[in-house]
Amino acid sequence: MPETATGSAVGEVLTALRLATMVAGTAPYGLVEDGALAIGPDGRIAWCGHAADLPADYASWPSRSLDGRLVTPGLVDCHTHIVHGGNRAREFELRLEGASYEEIARAGGGIVSTVAATRAASEDDLVASALPRLDTLIGEGVTTIEIKSGYGLTIADEIRMLTAARRLGRERGVRVVTSWLAAHAVPVEYKGRSQAYFDDVVLPGLDAAHAAGLVDAVDGFCEGIAFSPSEMAQVFERAKALGLPIKLHAEQLSDLGGAKLAAQYGALSADHLEYLGQDGVDAMAASGTVAVLLPGAFYTLREPQAPPVAALRAACVPIALATDCNPGSSPLTSLLLAMNMGATLFRLTPEECLAGATREAARALGLAGEIGTIETGKRADLAVWNVAEPAELTYRIGFNPLHERIFGGA
Amino acid sequence: MPETATGSAVGEVLTALRLATMVAGTAPYGLVEDGALAIGPDGRIAWCGHAADLPADYASWPSRSLDGRLVTPGLVDCHTHIVHGGNRAREFELRLEGASYEEIARAGGGIVSTVAATRAASEDDLVASALPRLDTLIGEGVTTIEIKSGYGLTIADEIRMLTAARRLGRERGVRVVTSWLAAHAVPVEYKGRSQAYFDDVVLPGLDAAHAAGLVDAVDGFCEGIAFSPSEMAQVFERAKALGLPIKLHAEQLSDLGGAKLAAQYGALSADHLEYLGQDGVDAMAASGTVAVLLPGAFYTLREPQAPPVAALRAACVPIALATDCNPGSSPLTSLLLAMNMGATLFRLTPEECLAGATREAARALGLAGEIGTIETGKRADLAVWNVAEPAELTYRIGFNPLHERIFGGA
Ligand SMILES: [Zn+2]
Ligand SMILES: [Zn+2]
Repeated sequence: MPETATGSAVGEVLTALRLATMVAGTAPYGLVEDGALAIGPDGRIAWCGHAADLPADYASWPSRSLDGRLVTPGLVDCHTHIVHGGNRAREFELRLEGASYEEIARAGGGIVSTVAATRAASEDDLVASALPRLDTLIGEGVTTIEIKSGYGLTIADEIRMLTAARRLGRERGVRVVTSWLAAHAVPVEYKGRSQAYFDDVVLPGLDAAHAAGLVDAVDGFCEGIAFSPSEMAQVFERAKALGLPIKLHAEQLSDLGGAKLAAQYGALSADHLEYLGQDGVDAMAASGTVAVLLPGAFYTLREPQAPPVAALRAACVPIALATDCNPGSSPLTSLLLAMNMGATLFRLTPEECLAGATREAARALGLAGEIGTIETGKRADLAVWNVAEPAELTYRIGFNPLHERIFGGA
Repeated sequence: MPETATGSAVGEVLTALRLATMVAGTAPYGLVEDGALAIGPDGRIAWCGHAADLPADYASWPSRSLDGRLVTPGLVDCHTHIVHGGNRAREFELRLEGASYEEIARAGGGIVSTVAATRAASEDDLVASALPRLDTLIGEGVTTIEIKSGYGLTIADEIRMLTAARRLGRERGVRVVTSWLAAHAVPVEYKGRSQAYFDDVVLPGLDAAHAAGLVDAVDGFCEGIAFSPSEMAQVFERAKALGLPIKLHAEQLSDLGGAKLAAQYGALSADHLEYLGQDGVDAMAASGTVAVLLPGAFYTLREPQAPPVAALRAACVPIALATDCNPGSSPLTSLLLAMNMGATLFRLTPEECLAGATREAARALGLAGEIGTIETGKRADLAVWNVAEPAELTYRIGFNPLHERIFGGA
């Protein structure tokens, strides 16, 4: 941080900018024209508003013009599986070449292959393979990323995934938020014995990982091909006992009532939601649970049914968007593209898409008080863009107009 | 170019690489393991093959290891409208906010708004606004790009677009191939008088632009909302008289027989083709016309009908993929993403996708003898990738694994 002549730390004033504060309920995008923004020496937003109103206190701080550029909150990718071993390009290719399910399974396809590759990967391997993906997201203005376990499926392997996730946050200027997702799939060695898997791995592993400070939230996959609501309830009970927030992969392929269950446990978010019914919408609205929509998986799986956006809107359920970056159903490493897909495939407005990748994504991580909007007191996590209008961020496809990224003021 | 001690120019030998030559009819992707590649001082491929077979002649040339990386032909984007004024982000937003067709028209939406912005733009403006888009494509390994006119719709404005396109090729290390597309839309001042527009602008403008050396091919938009086959035939006759190759936007929204007409004129390509019928497929097969598929427009327009890929395959019609980068129906600046969309939305195989962005795209531009595959004598336009398997180029979404791009050997 710069210091004054008398040695007291000061911050920096950014001028000549257009602010999309993303504060709800004011102008579209919370827009402030002819804005200014003071970043304190603590890396927080000391002041923001119309440049003409900048208090005299900040006149002595160093200032820098952004030449009229648009400033938004740093982007928040609130649902990723970015730490994993291997990739599934060969499976993708086999499928497109018309291979049968059996041929793909014989070639080692499916989540089983990612579990095997993740188990075989060292912590260093996991970090090294995730970094290019993470750097791509950082390069388009992401300042906070959620990272799940879920491809280890043993206590040690799940813990190694989250250890790698924490390391990513130290190796790059990005906030990493972790989720314990051992309840992602039943590993082959527990086939047909999911209760044993819960008793041996999911629940004791959660205790161990939490004790090691590796768990920010607890997640699961509630689906016919994964776990039932009653199984997920065991995980949520344990999370509750540990004081950890919960979230859930729910209603992606069918309506099992997962979102409703999660809402009853006060979940931060329920994610995917293509098959969410009105009862689930109502339960989420009542609990303030965020709907995290994942258009990359919808697109890749060529899912015919879109999530019930109109019903979510009508019930005022907050809607977030994320990449779901994972090697099987969403090898997507662009949150801007997830925003375009949110508009094109789910008919969200560009303002909803940007809110979904900032304010509502922060809320989905329980961080609404810290990040996600540009407001005094919040972390100075910002993205500066070479665009004239905020809608351009959602409109373009495969284009990155990031000019500068500011993380915690730096 | 490096020189030997005796002063004779030599080239460079690249070693420790995996070659996806994309030469048809051999191994998948024309793969050569443990490859080497000699680039002559003329910027052409002097030799390529297994490293063990490298002729002794090249032993004295400087060599460089690519550390086992995959080398493909430089990517070729064979259909773009990358030169244009303005953008349509506000129209995109209005549509998603539920505005009616009339409201969007009143707000100046549609192609009319791009024509107005393009007419208002100077040549410098057109170059400056296209460069970030072009640089994005170059950044993912594109070495040749086709650029169309079609938003000026006066002789002077169309010529300015192609002049800007040619300048892009001088300002960056990229090969630019131009198309005269005055027959893109009837401008408002000729509403209901398309024959007058042809007589005043399309045909004499083609003569003038060709005389100025600005036209590599002649294109048109054959559709209910644009021009009929008999109108397009006038343009093709003029192109024939001038000795220029032709191509056509055909069967995008309905089957008017445009592709068949184009094939009868020996077209290089027919593009879009969602509504192409079997007669069109047969005509294209007979004439060797390339099917240029544009999944970015299909995706953006949420088109329900995919092009007849199986019929094109069965008839051995070559299939290319392109971005169709344009401000209305495909604001897409990633050819890698077009490849992913080609697989995900059109069910092309990853090998077909890479061929579609290299070999077949080169063919669609009439440049099959110069670029598009890695073969002795062709231009050394190459892309070096940080991927283990060529399928990864198509599998990932919103990720750019380019390590290095080589254009004409440099
Ligand atoms: Zn997920
Ligand atoms: Zn076009």
